[in-house]
Amino acid sequence: MPDRPRLTPAVAQTRSAVREVLPEVGSSGGLVALSGGPDSLALAAAAAFEAPRAGVPMGAVVVDHGMQPGSAEAAERAAAAATALGLAPVLVRRVAVGRDGGPEAAARVARYAAFEGAMAETGRARVLLGHTLEDQAETVLLGLARGSGPDALAGMRVAAPPYLRPLLGLRRSATEAACADQGLDPWHDPMNAALAHPRVRLRRTALPALEEAIGPGVAEALARTAAQVQEDATALDAIAEELAPDLAELAEGGIALPVVALAANPPAIVHRLIRLAVEDEFGRTLSRAQTLAVARLVFAWHGQEGVDLPGIRVVRAGGRLEFTGA
Amino acid sequence: MPDRPRLTPAVAQTRSAVREVLPEVGSSGGLVALSGGPDSLALAAAAAFEAPRAGVPMGAVVVDHGMQPGSAEAAERAAAAATALGLAPVLVRRVAVGRDGGPEAAARVARYAAFEGAMAETGRARVLLGHTLEDQAETVLLGLARGSGPDALAGMRVAAPPYLRPLLGLRRSATEAACADQGLDPWHDPMNAALAHPRVRLRRTALPALEEAIGPGVAEALARTAAQVQEDATALDAIAEELAPDLAELAEGGIALPVVALAANPPAIVHRLIRLAVEDEFGRTLSRAQTLAVARLVFAWHGQEGVDLPGIRVVRAGGRLEFTGA
Repeated sequence: MPDRPRLTPAVAQTRSAVREVLPEVGSSGGLVALSGGPDSLALAAAAAFEAPRAGVPMGAVVVDHGMQPGSAEAAERAAAAATALGLAPVLVRRVAVGRDGGPEAAARVARYAAFEGAMAETGRARVLLGHTLEDQAETVLLGLARGSGPDALAGMRVAAPPYLRPLLGLRRSATEAACADQGLDPWHDPMNAALAHPRVRLRRTALPALEEAIGPGVAEALARTAAQVQEDATALDAIAEELAPDLAELAEGGIALPVVALAANPPAIVHRLIRLAVEDEFGRTLSRAQTLAVARLVFAWHGQEGVDLPGIRVVRAGGRLEFTGA
Repeated sequence: MPDRPRLTPAVAQTRSAVREVLPEVGSSGGLVALSGGPDSLALAAAAAFEAPRAGVPMGAVVVDHGMQPGSAEAAERAAAAATALGLAPVLVRRVAVGRDGGPEAAARVARYAAFEGAMAETGRARVLLGHTLEDQAETVLLGLARGSGPDALAGMRVAAPPYLRPLLGLRRSATEAACADQGLDPWHDPMNAALAHPRVRLRRTALPALEEAIGPGVAEALARTAAQVQEDATALDAIAEELAPDLAELAEGGIALPVVALAANPPAIVHRLIRLAVEDEFGRTLSRAQTLAVARLVFAWHGQEGVDLPGIRVVRAGGRLEFTGA
């Protein structure tokens, strides 16, 4: 039967990856976020194959960012492919991309807003995204290189409801092979080749340079490390959130943390408790440098004046760190 | 007074960095590990200036790896510079570099053995190393790219007794400037230019490619992230080590962990408890993949057979994870 595609290793990998997350989608069903590129097209094909077998309704949503000539045609072509694969419903959403934070960030915001709208409209509770191991490696490197700490370094999660990323453990080459093996013709977004994007520069130059310097497998290794760092950060966040309510005391015009109880914890938890106190009381997120400045009132106390943060004054008095609106 | 060097910003930076660690050296004194390169020469100059003012005896140890022609002369030159700076005693140690793990790793082993010997011989309890921010960034990237988890990613520590790295927060350009400003003429190790070393390839190609992709400040950001990841891993290691003795139970021919008590913890701690149990009982360190396989008996239990690790069998029975010699 020449019209039935072979079950090649790449096709099997994509299908098995989708199968693993289908219980997370459940009977209310999902939508595949489809750009028409190799990653999301392979995801759509795998989902179209697996979802009916698991009794999970599966449609697709195609976002036309309108950022280049021919984007509407590309979106229609992707939608037609989704329909041909048997996904339903298939929505096409044209979005208006703003300017905040640069074109890549603005497109992202518009895209996720379209996903939210598509879920609301269709009653589907999950969106499947086609991010791969390389996307993960790039995200980790970007986070790492921006020095934004364990959270950014941790990268993306397979399950971050309502979003699921079944292909996060697969290499991009597997999605390309899966498309070829199933006779699918992916669209290659010219934006992905524009070297102006930091992410594209990472993909084209920095990651290959890393592989050249250290050996192959850097993307896998980055993703593996990301998983462990994510795990560590999650555990410590949970511990700090459990400790925080018992620790925080009222202070005049603010909140206070008792120094002895605070200092009984390791710095990783103390820093989180300081950040949580400020977030809860002032709705503000402290930077790493600001958090360390406050923590010096605990760990490097020599009678200093206190710390002035924008809008918040922190002093050590009467055995407490007192945070008050400045 | 033309013979007194100016106190330039770079000189001030190196001195202030050394001043911060001198309390860690203490009155039993230290040795600067001097290669004669810009990093360790700037360190030696700063230590020679600051240590006497803090009442800390400070000498130097020069290791001649004998790995290239002229290395003995380079070592003598470095020793002469140390003596001229006023450091005492100044030791030169010629070492025999083995082959295990490649030339870079073997040289490292021989070098640290020489440091240990020099400390024993002189009674000095600390060795000051000239690692800079760029060394830290390279170490983080190497660890990250090898996927060896938070520990490797965490990089080097400023204080890892008996070793101290006062310059870990300074850029290499600052040590070069400090040498130039003080009229010191550093030696440029030809090994540092040999592209065969992964670390050199990182320095010459991958780090610049990352800076090109993401913007300047990647080395600082890598070091900053490393500090946070290190902090997180340290806290969780301590928590797990505190929990472990209360949790572990005897099992016939091995050790057991009660599943309910284990599963009350987040994965980051469960994984550590599993690794600690195996380390304590069998003196073996589990890989990430092995640890995850065992943890599935806790978090993804569906009556499976158990896990066979090299020399260790792990089964779930009677509400316990039982680890026995296989």
